[in-house]
Amino acid sequence: MNTLVRAAALAALASGLYAPPLPSPISLMPLPKEVTVGIGSLPITGAFAVAVSGPGAQDARVQKAVPRLVARMARQTGIPMPAVAPVSEKDAALEIVVAEMGHDGVQKLGDNERYSLTVADSHIKLAADTPLGVLRGMETLLQLVRQTPNAPGVAAGFSVPNVVIQDEPRFPWRGLSFDVSRHFMPVDVVKRELDGLAAVKLNVLHWHLSDDEGFRVESKKFPKLQELGSDGMFYTQDEVRDVLAYAADRGIRVVPEFDMPGHSSSFLAAYPELGSGPGPFPVVHNHEEEPSLAMDPTKESTYEFLDGFIEEMTALFPDEYFHVGGDEVSPKKWLGTPHIRAFMEEHKMANAAALQAYFSKRVLEIVTKHGKHMVGWDEILNRDLPKTAVIQSWRGQQSLWSAAKDGYQGILSAGYYLDLSYSSSYHYSIDPMKAPASPDGGPVGKGLPPGSPADLTADQAKLILGGEGATWEELASVEMIDARLWPRLAAIAERLWSPESDTDVASMYQRLQVTSEWLEWLGMNHRSNLVLMRQRLAGPYPRHPLDVLASLVEPTKGYSRHAQKYGIFSPLNRLSFAIPYESDTAREFRNGVDEYLADKRNGTELQKNLADWEQAARDVRPMLTNQSVLTENLPVADGVEKLCQVGAEALRYLSGPTKPPVDWKKTAKAKIDPFVGKRFGDLLIQIGPGVRKLVEAAPGS
Amino acid sequence: MNTLVRAAALAALASGLYAPPLPSPISLMPLPKEVTVGIGSLPITGAFAVAVSGPGAQDARVQKAVPRLVARMARQTGIPMPAVAPVSEKDAALEIVVAEMGHDGVQKLGDNERYSLTVADSHIKLAADTPLGVLRGMETLLQLVRQTPNAPGVAAGFSVPNVVIQDEPRFPWRGLSFDVSRHFMPVDVVKRELDGLAAVKLNVLHWHLSDDEGFRVESKKFPKLQELGSDGMFYTQDEVRDVLAYAADRGIRVVPEFDMPGHSSSFLAAYPELGSGPGPFPVVHNHEEEPSLAMDPTKESTYEFLDGFIEEMTALFPDEYFHVGGDEVSPKKWLGTPHIRAFMEEHKMANAAALQAYFSKRVLEIVTKHGKHMVGWDEILNRDLPKTAVIQSWRGQQSLWSAAKDGYQGILSAGYYLDLSYSSSYHYSIDPMKAPASPDGGPVGKGLPPGSPADLTADQAKLILGGEGATWEELASVEMIDARLWPRLAAIAERLWSPESDTDVASMYQRLQVTSEWLEWLGMNHRSNLVLMRQRLAGPYPRHPLDVLASLVEPTKGYSRHAQKYGIFSPLNRLSFAIPYESDTAREFRNGVDEYLADKRNGTELQKNLADWEQAARDVRPMLTNQSVLTENLPVADGVEKLCQVGAEALRYLSGPTKPPVDWKKTAKAKIDPFVGKRFGDLLIQIGPGVRKLVEAAPGS
Repeated sequence: MNTLVRAAALAALASGLYAPPLPSPISLMPLPKEVTVGIGSLPITGAFAVAVSGPGAQDARVQKAVPRLVARMARQTGIPMPAVAPVSEKDAALEIVVAEMGHDGVQKLGDNERYSLTVADSHIKLAADTPLGVLRGMETLLQLVRQTPNAPGVAAGFSVPNVVIQDEPRFPWRGLSFDVSRHFMPVDVVKRELDGLAAVKLNVLHWHLSDDEGFRVESKKFPKLQELGSDGMFYTQDEVRDVLAYAADRGIRVVPEFDMPGHSSSFLAAYPELGSGPGPFPVVHNHEEEPSLAMDPTKESTYEFLDGFIEEMTALFPDEYFHVGGDEVSPKKWLGTPHIRAFMEEHKMANAAALQAYFSKRVLEIVTKHGKHMVGWDEILNRDLPKTAVIQSWRGQQSLWSAAKDGYQGILSAGYYLDLSYSSSYHYSIDPMKAPASPDGGPVGKGLPPGSPADLTADQAKLILGGEGATWEELASVEMIDARLWPRLAAIAERLWSPESDTDVASMYQRLQVTSEWLEWLGMNHRSNLVLMRQRLAGPYPRHPLDVLASLVEPTKGYSRHAQKYGIFSPLNRLSFAIPYESDTAREFRNGVDEYLADKRNGTELQKNLADWEQAARDVRPMLTNQSVLTENLPVADGVEKLCQVGAEALRYLSGPTKPPVDWKKTAKAKIDPFVGKRFGDLLIQIGPGVRKLVEAAPGS
Repeated sequence: MNTLVRAAALAALASGLYAPPLPSPISLMPLPKEVTVGIGSLPITGAFAVAVSGPGAQDARVQKAVPRLVARMARQTGIPMPAVAPVSEKDAALEIVVAEMGHDGVQKLGDNERYSLTVADSHIKLAADTPLGVLRGMETLLQLVRQTPNAPGVAAGFSVPNVVIQDEPRFPWRGLSFDVSRHFMPVDVVKRELDGLAAVKLNVLHWHLSDDEGFRVESKKFPKLQELGSDGMFYTQDEVRDVLAYAADRGIRVVPEFDMPGHSSSFLAAYPELGSGPGPFPVVHNHEEEPSLAMDPTKESTYEFLDGFIEEMTALFPDEYFHVGGDEVSPKKWLGTPHIRAFMEEHKMANAAALQAYFSKRVLEIVTKHGKHMVGWDEILNRDLPKTAVIQSWRGQQSLWSAAKDGYQGILSAGYYLDLSYSSSYHYSIDPMKAPASPDGGPVGKGLPPGSPADLTADQAKLILGGEGATWEELASVEMIDARLWPRLAAIAERLWSPESDTDVASMYQRLQVTSEWLEWLGMNHRSNLVLMRQRLAGPYPRHPLDVLASLVEPTKGYSRHAQKYGIFSPLNRLSFAIPYESDTAREFRNGVDEYLADKRNGTELQKNLADWEQAARDVRPMLTNQSVLTENLPVADGVEKLCQVGAEALRYLSGPTKPPVDWKKTAKAKIDPFVGKRFGDLLIQIGPGVRKLVEAAPGS
């Protein structure tokens, strides 16, 4: 949000021009570039009518978006809105003006997404250069709809506050890398997530369609890919086209990824002749147990196959970018295979990286021949790679910047991995143009101090296209995929759309909460499905104490859960799968402790929290004892109980006149240390650090 | 449940043969005819395999049901179950034996639904005479799946307890009358409800497809019916066939209803020449504002139209029964139209009922000509009606019994109207073979004492085919339809399936709670959508105090809400739409008060309840004050606060040594009386009666 405008809005607030009874009159995510909130609002009625004009009015995306907007508004308000015929601008509640017809054909990287939105008492005007801008503005409008606050002369119902918004994105490539290989995600799930992406103004679905565990698209040329390379779960080409049309309608590009030469067991299971050694090769169902296989880059037949395959897939997927993976190739198989070693010697390749460079170059030739730009992970980068390739970085900003200095376009995914159980504030802190902090706030390895700006020229900086949230589905199935993505992906979306200066974490969390709630109107089940999963765990026991316990823990971070060797057929039904990746309660407690230590005002509230949690930790015990899948979590209940007891003691000593006994602090620490920052199965008790802070601040030594 | 078997099960419990750590080892709804629970259980694994044998093994319904069963088991347990090839009986976890091939073609009234289910450690055997029996047994099996209780040597996970079940239904016609005219229900909603019906072993979807407010099926012969008689929302014939196939796969008959000669404005809007007076006629959007129009029974052209229409619809709907409505014909229009009065005089018809009898007879001839049995509401019954007609009674058991004495088959819907906001226990008490009590427990009008058995001969009794839950959608849209149906419909389903002697209300509620939870695995949103609706009302305020308030109220009963003149385009977004029709909390409080007055043991718990509710009633106030749609509920918060205060006082006087002041009881009653049994908008505060009981029991006068 533009600072000047923000200041103006605050001044309006302070002047009492309007007295908002709500925590915030508007809650938008991502934040627009400029917002000015006015006085008054436009009531939403069942006769909400829309008029579209301008040269772009007949664009199919706009035409389809209008009834969708009305249906969503009806859903959000509970006000039936019978289909009405298009009306003239003056009679319309919403006037949409589209200055240009969208260019013919497929949405392109960098297409104009700018829009302006003005709400003034009895009229809403949404103006945009392009149909794409209209789509973005509609999402903002829907986020503005809220129940009308009571005021004299105002009718009960729903309304949109008067507001003037000018908006456009900071980066042109804002995506989600979505793994459907490890656990297949059916079409309805993909469409639901596309709704979510569009709602937070993301514009790329990077569809990770093949990996060791499964090949997920029907190939008509090479049908064994889906027949032998999947467990029967894949998208038919008709289904792919259906998804592509759905995405296009929402202004989302779809970039397919077929991972090669590594992460390609599913290719090799279907066509063993592609492999580096003699087959047959299995589809890998448990990645920890099988080394990642790789294609044989030395055989011409490999490239002939890929030529045919890429020809088919580039025809199916219209986007101008085509992702070929390229990550994590294990050199072992290559180096252990005589004919491959011979080939390397013959071509003076010093190591497996050089061989992969050769492979990348050959694949790039094929991708280019079929009219696409190639995208790949960091590993494809090498001195010989033509500048038309785009680098997606899981390694980090410096890898990206270094590529930009060499003239390569790049997108950032390091720091945006949603499967690693980090917080929204961590992901929000990750900026493609600044050195990152690690999840605990410190510097990353020997990298630049966190926050250091990219040392790039203006032209180099333009090569940084944006970023992608990423999620790998070894540990997520259909049941909890929404909870893995949402709401944290919205924080990444804001980072990539909104001005660089929008870094207020408290504001972000406030709006994320609202965003999380209204995403449910789009069908996201990130909260409701976890409730169902906990109900399954609770069985006939009242669920409440389990919900409380669940609200205090998080899954362990990074790759630590993978050590448990989950395969893709492992049940994902334990408690660690039935909780959000980020505990709001623990974060609020942490903040509450800091506030308490600053001003001592919220002590009663903290005491009540600790007492309630301690009670829940006791109440949950019969359930944990008797329900076999839950029993492993008894130590978590122990920990919560102990932490709450000690935390309550510390609060008493901090607030009252009573001094603790001489050894209290030492004893207290000894009591809680086994539970602070320690893992219990796949779980961390996240109120531990806050309690420890209270103990340390308490009198005594 | 067979009493002998129940006694045996209780004896097994008492003997300590197994010590169930769960409230109940099994929770089935509807209760089977005979159940014996054994020791031990069969673990559910990802390799759960099914073998089907017997002459009926190739029946398409069975073939399709097997993968559906496996998928649902996977969903309920969170255990992935990759598709496995059919295995031999000995290797299968589940062996299904189908003694007969289902008869060719369409499911018939009275088709055998019997099955037996035996679970013994490592093997489940489901045996049935027919494919239909297999479907019913599968639902029972899925209800038996639960998390394995901890025990030495037992693996963590899910399992099915060892059990022997013999089961068959009491009545052959067990349905839901489902109005999709007032508020249209799209195909996915209908399919979801069909899943629900099948899960509680209901076997008829009575699809109320036309009414004043809308005609909901595509007619190719008379396309104006859907074009002018609906608001654009109707089922295409392909969609109808899709629903019919979906229902048939689940063992559910679909009986279409086209309401005539009354409730037919949508017919008349399309074809005004059918009307009793000169058109044009509007589609009625607000029933209270327009008198119900009726077709003209005197014109031959009416019957010519109906012959063509019924010919088309009887071809589309394969069931052997065809429902023509016939209810609530207003005599006004008929009697006020000269040519109709002349016709009546000519044919010596004394009144409008005689004219309707004539119409019914003519329509029955048409329905019969097209090969169907006619079904209609009470009003079609008259001396001349052939015995092939079936009477559906909204008037009650005595109307049904009287029809049976005259030789007519009948089905009961009186007492099963789910839109009238009565309790599950009320619906559960309604038995087609016993005189009903009114919702408040008293006799109905001048009827027989509640519980009096039907005075029918055995042959007459056989004419009572069963019953149908019914829901009319003036006041329910897609958003809350599940909450209108579930879980209360499951109590009706049990009444119609299980033995007449199963009348334990406490057991019913215990199992209804479990049923309500697992219906969510089938996609019912009866709880989650109400949460969303309350979130919409709460807006930016924390939802908890509203949830508490919502848990203490119910919508007003009977037709009292209709007085507010809701039309089908009215927003249904107020608090009264965002709550369950039955308050579990209020019921538990009522029971808690009775227990307290009996033994004084749960006083602390009751005090805590009242204190929590009082707190919520205070906390909710800023939300109610500021959120315009909620403001009308401020008196409800007043009432809850007052009731809780007075209830807490009463409890103190009941439990402690302190005596109340002289006038306390009088004052207390005066304080609470404005809130007990009084309506606030569309709401009743349902903790009122319990508090009043406490006050009356308190010392003093």
